[in-house]
Amino acid sequence: MRDHQDPSESRLVAGLMSGTSADGVDVALVRIEGTGTDVAVTLVAHDVLKYSSGVRQRILSCQGAAAGNARDVALLDAYVGELFGHALLHICKKAAVAPADVSAAGSHGQTLYHHPAPVQYPGFAVTNSLQVGAPSVIAQRSGITVVSGFRGRDMAAGGQGAPLAPYLDYILFHHRSRSRLVLNIGGIANLTAMPAGAGLDGLLAFDTGPGNCLMDLATWHYSGGKQAFDVDGASARKGRVHEAFLAALLEHPFLKMAPPKSADKETFGSDFLDGALLRFPELRGPDVLATLAAFTVRSIAMGILEFCTQKARYEEIIVSGGGANNPVLMESLRGAFPKLVFATSDEYAIPGKAKEAVLMAVLADATLHGWPSNVPAATGAKAAVVLGDITPGVSFFDEAP
Amino acid sequence: MRDHQDPSESRLVAGLMSGTSADGVDVALVRIEGTGTDVAVTLVAHDVLKYSSGVRQRILSCQGAAAGNARDVALLDAYVGELFGHALLHICKKAAVAPADVSAAGSHGQTLYHHPAPVQYPGFAVTNSLQVGAPSVIAQRSGITVVSGFRGRDMAAGGQGAPLAPYLDYILFHHRSRSRLVLNIGGIANLTAMPAGAGLDGLLAFDTGPGNCLMDLATWHYSGGKQAFDVDGASARKGRVHEAFLAALLEHPFLKMAPPKSADKETFGSDFLDGALLRFPELRGPDVLATLAAFTVRSIAMGILEFCTQKARYEEIIVSGGGANNPVLMESLRGAFPKLVFATSDEYAIPGKAKEAVLMAVLADATLHGWPSNVPAATGAKAAVVLGDITPGVSFFDEAP
Repeated sequence: MRDHQDPSESRLVAGLMSGTSADGVDVALVRIEGTGTDVAVTLVAHDVLKYSSGVRQRILSCQGAAAGNARDVALLDAYVGELFGHALLHICKKAAVAPADVSAAGSHGQTLYHHPAPVQYPGFAVTNSLQVGAPSVIAQRSGITVVSGFRGRDMAAGGQGAPLAPYLDYILFHHRSRSRLVLNIGGIANLTAMPAGAGLDGLLAFDTGPGNCLMDLATWHYSGGKQAFDVDGASARKGRVHEAFLAALLEHPFLKMAPPKSADKETFGSDFLDGALLRFPELRGPDVLATLAAFTVRSIAMGILEFCTQKARYEEIIVSGGGANNPVLMESLRGAFPKLVFATSDEYAIPGKAKEAVLMAVLADATLHGWPSNVPAATGAKAAVVLGDITPGVSFFDEAP
Repeated sequence: MRDHQDPSESRLVAGLMSGTSADGVDVALVRIEGTGTDVAVTLVAHDVLKYSSGVRQRILSCQGAAAGNARDVALLDAYVGELFGHALLHICKKAAVAPADVSAAGSHGQTLYHHPAPVQYPGFAVTNSLQVGAPSVIAQRSGITVVSGFRGRDMAAGGQGAPLAPYLDYILFHHRSRSRLVLNIGGIANLTAMPAGAGLDGLLAFDTGPGNCLMDLATWHYSGGKQAFDVDGASARKGRVHEAFLAALLEHPFLKMAPPKSADKETFGSDFLDGALLRFPELRGPDVLATLAAFTVRSIAMGILEFCTQKARYEEIIVSGGGANNPVLMESLRGAFPKLVFATSDEYAIPGKAKEAVLMAVLADATLHGWPSNVPAATGAKAAVVLGDITPGVSFFDEAP
């Protein structure tokens, strides 16, 4: 571990991420200068190392409440650590940077289970989030100090351990005189609202509801498993919005819940979709897709109108995630907010696809400097806390001095 | 985390341990002065907080290869974290020390699974050790910086992640001009041999074989489950050693294996005992106990004679663990080594029963100073490494400075 880091000095930090869908390791190398939320972050390199289907299946088999066992979890932890260590050395090589010049690596790990709702055990109500990807293995293979386990501390402080992204959104997009919304449309859509001049504690961040998850499910179904997502919204464009079906979808109780709130794949999963569709057996694929696109946009719009615009006047919305590439979704969203300036995060320093890995680097840097990096307004934590566990890299003494 | 610790200053460090048998949390508070293996360690307070039978059952149900699942492991992790956090605050109160004055706490956690033998996964052979007891929860409840996960880094460096105790044995008992053996007779018996004047790399440490485990199993069986161990060796004293049964026991391949080597409850478990007893159905309980005591002493003696005394002349043996209280065992051992001076660790500064928790404190202190604390000669690791993950305690900034 590099002690005595001078925060005014520029440092190279890596970030490692693998999403719940277990597609691969997302790795970034960034240069960071400055202190706290006033850091400047520059992307040096980014890459995705896709898992083979065998590795992906091995991970998915341990995911979820009832999956895995102590042995599978322990060995997968070491194995994903090897894969992350490999990805870390790969990005150093790609950027022609010696691992010894990287001050730290932040690792999200691979989530097996996330349970933010308290469960009563004798004497204590507990929550937790389980990630694998042993930091000891990553540190030993690379010699780089690793910071990991970012969600646990926020949860220990009463938070949901998610979302973590608003910390980076704030760093990248906060502005003294412009009020901005940052929208990420992944499987689930999440929104960070930053009133002009607000501090971290003035943020509002929450999941609005479905991102691409319902449209992806329907596309998979109507294509007979041949298509994973509705490319360019082509199918949705051919269909028509079915108002009764839309109204049924809009009854989902998540939409009316006040922030902080977070959704997962199961909140808007096949159980919900199949249940709503049961009442409309006559609907064709394109109409279902068009209605789901409309539902997605409406749920985002409800989030903005009910929880954000009543408190501040927003001028700009910065959109990232796969949904930003769906023209049907974006046209509909622009139509709903004609006064907002639309931008995509790719127009800024950090392209959207690298954001999650960059977030891990920025969180690691904060922890090594002792800066809290959760956003209690977003996670519901009772306090701002320093996130994660620090695993020292190479030691600078062969033995005690 | 307290940065910039001056190692010449005295500091208070806590240690937390729960053994595989999941009896309770063993917690110690020590004062440490000095650097590296030249530290002086003084016990300030020690206590054991026993688990209720419900908590113990909950832990045991997640232990072992096929037990638990992602949800149980994740929630138990947070729960044991709460119990450890409670034990940490308890020892501070008992010692009348403010948590803010404790520089760190080392936590072993509760082992669910330990797998030192490599398992081939695609591209990498993996090993790992899974402990629960979330350090984020311990740190958040106490405000104290926690160091945990000590076994993982040694395993990432090619070691077995065990034993860790030789590091403390060396600190407490190494001597410039006296060659010493340190013997701990727990369930399994382990030995640390320290030739006079040797450094950490001159140690030899390994499990010799059974400690009390076989005698406990037999006592449980012959008492019809009424007695957990042979108090004062009373039953063994009534019996006679059966030479053919003893010879059968001595065929166990573990005894001839060269160090580093480690055994677990299953290496000398009921499968082994029942298998050996099958050939001698006529044996009475006391004779079985007497023979098992003789086997235990013989396996310890073989370890000393075959791997230690050929390389150095030892003057003293310091015995700790439950077996040190069994007079039959101790008389037999004294008989086997008439020239060795026998001492118990209770005659030294750290009583035997506190040693495991004290070890955790000493390891945490080493890690925070950047001192490697595994003993490659004992674990088989390819390098001396800094052990564990550091979870910062209270942050000293409410927000970025």
